[in-house]
Amino acid sequence: MFEQLGLIGCGLMGGSFALALKQAGLVQRVVGYSKSPSTTQLARELGVIDVEAPSALLAVSGADIVLLAVPVAATEETFKSIRHLLSPDTLVMDVGSTKSDIVAAARTVLREQLPCFVPAHPIAGREVAGVRHADARLYQDRQVILTPLPETRPDHLARAEQVWKALGSRVRHMTPEAHDTAYAAVSHLPHLVAFAAMNAIAAQPQAREFLSLAGPGFRDFTRIAASDPSVWRDILLANRANVLAQSAQLRAALDALEACMQTPDGPALQQLIEKASDARSAWTLPSASASVPDN
Amino acid sequence: MFEQLGLIGCGLMGGSFALALKQAGLVQRVVGYSKSPSTTQLARELGVIDVEAPSALLAVSGADIVLLAVPVAATEETFKSIRHLLSPDTLVMDVGSTKSDIVAAARTVLREQLPCFVPAHPIAGREVAGVRHADARLYQDRQVILTPLPETRPDHLARAEQVWKALGSRVRHMTPEAHDTAYAAVSHLPHLVAFAAMNAIAAQPQAREFLSLAGPGFRDFTRIAASDPSVWRDILLANRANVLAQSAQLRAALDALEACMQTPDGPALQQLIEKASDARSAWTLPSASASVPDN
Repeated sequence: MFEQLGLIGCGLMGGSFALALKQAGLVQRVVGYSKSPSTTQLARELGVIDVEAPSALLAVSGADIVLLAVPVAATEETFKSIRHLLSPDTLVMDVGSTKSDIVAAARTVLREQLPCFVPAHPIAGREVAGVRHADARLYQDRQVILTPLPETRPDHLARAEQVWKALGSRVRHMTPEAHDTAYAAVSHLPHLVAFAAMNAIAAQPQAREFLSLAGPGFRDFTRIAASDPSVWRDILLANRANVLAQSAQLRAALDALEACMQTPDGPALQQLIEKASDARSAWTLPSASASVPDN
Repeated sequence: MFEQLGLIGCGLMGGSFALALKQAGLVQRVVGYSKSPSTTQLARELGVIDVEAPSALLAVSGADIVLLAVPVAATEETFKSIRHLLSPDTLVMDVGSTKSDIVAAARTVLREQLPCFVPAHPIAGREVAGVRHADARLYQDRQVILTPLPETRPDHLARAEQVWKALGSRVRHMTPEAHDTAYAAVSHLPHLVAFAAMNAIAAQPQAREFLSLAGPGFRDFTRIAASDPSVWRDILLANRANVLAQSAQLRAALDALEACMQTPDGPALQQLIEKASDARSAWTLPSASASVPDN
């Protein structure tokens, strides 16, 4: 399908994409670049990329597909450094967890190459970072949200869909704004709260004992707190208006529960917990094969 | 080791204890009682108990070990209904997630039988309730906290330790107060927040679409929101002073993160996330074999 993938950012997300593309026989050669030369070297040693590029620009040279897998705040700079070598026939995608800021950066920088760009957000990840954890199956049975622009070339969009489907993902389309609102609620706020939960415990003198007593519920509730700090700094800043609005919603729901505890009003408390428990019991992780409501 | 287990409450926790005890060959006969006759019947049909008792009192009759596995608020009533048939040689335990209230109920009701009682909290559970999910391995490789009283008979305490160890658990001792403080932080507050997170989403008009977009991070963060409502109503009420204090700590940690988002102050935000991420990365679920700090 493709001759050469230009991979910018050889971390967990980018490395997993390269491995998956290779394993599916969709690309002949992967040229990779990471900001840290030791990461690029390691990616080659691990067979994630075939050729180390000394710059983002050179990673793009000759590529017919380009993936940006960098912290979202680095997107604009990356676009700037590669735009001169993008041909109109090159498919360009990102894997960022926010979309409005990425789209704004693309509009500002890419100009006549804007139709090449298909903004993408695969709903996959892991609480560990780095190319060592790259996994060809990371995107399998996961959703991928594409937020195409009016300018996006339809053939690029179609190929983007094909690529993700070939990796076992289910593709959905949204506007960048609807994407950012939804993911503030179901991903960004949960990360923020998980960070806060860890910091709240760490700030107490009994932190070490508390942590030695925690069980499987705590393990799952806080798993995402181990996520990559620079990646999440960028996401929380880029989408801060939506995240702060969702935090206010959470605080209101917490206020309601706490009011029942303070009264105390057992039946009202039980009712609120039942609502939450029923909603969570009815939910299952959307898979590539499940049906979804139309947008 | 035991002739007869009197099981009061044939749900997930109680049923799993009965199955584990049987599988380890530690008990000859299980006599069970649940408030709902259909649950007791189902427990017998599933082989979790051998004999259905028509009352808590009759479940205790002839037992040399008794386990209370009822919502914590039902503990005092249960003690009242069984105390007349408790012999001084019967080991009595509970599995409640709070300990100060349970100990207070035992002091009020059990009186001369108080030395029989070894308050216990196994750090195990599941987001599903009911005897159908009972599992002989539920307590394997998990911690069990015992909060013995000055009055607790040392031989009962020793036997309680032996039982849990035989089921593959690691036993730790704490005071009821230290237990309740710690579990407010690492279990009760996370449950409260997970309930609030589900309710906050459910309250929004786009709830259905949001939930259809959520990924593995959301799945793990909210898993405990599916917990049993009446069990958690009781826990949150019984330990509400500690839980509300921990909630204030969490809100302060959340305030600090949000202040960095609002400024915005990227470096300070990254520092706070790094603290959380480092703390979570350094943590692993305590297992039955791991070493722990002394209390």
